[in-house]
Amino acid sequence: MQKKEPIILVTNDDGINAPGIRALVEAVRPLGRVVVVAPDSPQSGMGHAITIGQPLRLDKVQVFEGIDSWQCSGTPADCVKLARDKVLHRKPDLCVSGINHGANHSINVIYSGTMSAAMEAAIEDIPSVGFSSLDYSFDADFAIAARVARSVAERMLSTKLPPHILLNVNIPVVSEEEFKGIKICRQAYAKWQEEFDHRLDPRGKDYYWMVGKFINMDEGDGTDVQALADGYASMVPITIDFTNTKTKSWLEETWQF
Amino acid sequence: MQKKEPIILVTNDDGINAPGIRALVEAVRPLGRVVVVAPDSPQSGMGHAITIGQPLRLDKVQVFEGIDSWQCSGTPADCVKLARDKVLHRKPDLCVSGINHGANHSINVIYSGTMSAAMEAAIEDIPSVGFSSLDYSFDADFAIAARVARSVAERMLSTKLPPHILLNVNIPVVSEEEFKGIKICRQAYAKWQEEFDHRLDPRGKDYYWMVGKFINMDEGDGTDVQALADGYASMVPITIDFTNTKTKSWLEETWQF
Repeated sequence: MQKKEPIILVTNDDGINAPGIRALVEAVRPLGRVVVVAPDSPQSGMGHAITIGQPLRLDKVQVFEGIDSWQCSGTPADCVKLARDKVLHRKPDLCVSGINHGANHSINVIYSGTMSAAMEAAIEDIPSVGFSSLDYSFDADFAIAARVARSVAERMLSTKLPPHILLNVNIPVVSEEEFKGIKICRQAYAKWQEEFDHRLDPRGKDYYWMVGKFINMDEGDGTDVQALADGYASMVPITIDFTNTKTKSWLEETWQF
Repeated sequence: MQKKEPIILVTNDDGINAPGIRALVEAVRPLGRVVVVAPDSPQSGMGHAITIGQPLRLDKVQVFEGIDSWQCSGTPADCVKLARDKVLHRKPDLCVSGINHGANHSINVIYSGTMSAAMEAAIEDIPSVGFSSLDYSFDADFAIAARVARSVAERMLSTKLPPHILLNVNIPVVSEEEFKGIKICRQAYAKWQEEFDHRLDPRGKDYYWMVGKFINMDEGDGTDVQALADGYASMVPITIDFTNTKTKSWLEETWQF
């Protein structure tokens, strides 16, 4: 008897027409029945936004040869919720998000729509992983990223991670020769130093464009930022439980109300 | 010589005209120089969204008697970034977010705009805390919540938490007699069970409203959900480092690529 084919949900935050999601669909296509539910337009920087004050659209589309695909008017987190409830009517065996055009290492995990889709799946106890390439360009070469994605997806279909833990995988911009493989890391402490570009509109009123400079504040060992600089793909296991237990104990000992 | 007055940044996600932020402004007013930078419209469910594809507006407004206030067209996270960079030109001594109309305990921390503002401050190493009342109604009674907020804010001005740790404080809907005080907790594992309300628009096309039922999946001790049910205000120390170190060690031992 044949083993039942796993269902792999593919989503992203750059939108269903981004080259990165196409590379991811092709990377995981041999591993099971692939179903795509992705935003109909770019959703970068959406964090874990969900759509509660507006109705959502979900339309079947023909984007990938031989792959059932839907585009959704909502956020990446909305896509995962709708995929489970209205498209698959069950949990997928794996949710892969990406391949994002741009880094989601370190603090970016908090702002990332790509990672929020994977987090939404993890909340539902669906094995999930987000993939991001450090190459921002539209015509990025996803060859190494796609190979990493297939390898990680394959592993996730055969080995279950602890409940509600997902993976954040970033891929460096290196040549085949420079690429060193996958390294398990911790999230670097980093931040975006904002520099708001102040302008005047045609009526003389102020407005601002957010521009930011990424600053790695973490000189310690084993970070994703360091691994990527060294030519590795970084893999960070991410939790959806944000409790800091060390501080919890300290508060219990020292704070009285 | 007089001690320098601390600067307290107040923000929220329900918008600058919500009753909750008014209660919070009044609660912390005696503790320092209060400055408000808050969204010009409700931003609930925005998660940690930031505005990168559109310009931002920031306008001085008169909303609170004797308090410098600005409204911003962006998200709660945008408000904190703009407050630091364009309003205060320095870090505030404390950032308080809320009082949210509705719970942000357990998994809600991921979806919450209130908490994303506080997290944004924590990224900048600004002491920060989010306050949420379990009372969703517009005419909620914030008396207990405001007292809790003042007490916690006072404590935070005198004792520094470890770097990049913030507090998530939720206040139950109870009478003065039933209220049991503040309890330090861990984040409960819970989720929203989506039930999409499927409708047809006037042209016969499908659309969906997201409705959800909150489900606490966590029967363990010490959770915020349990404390609130018992009549306590819950206080959870939250980290911005999402690395799960236990799984990291396990992956390092068992996964080879």
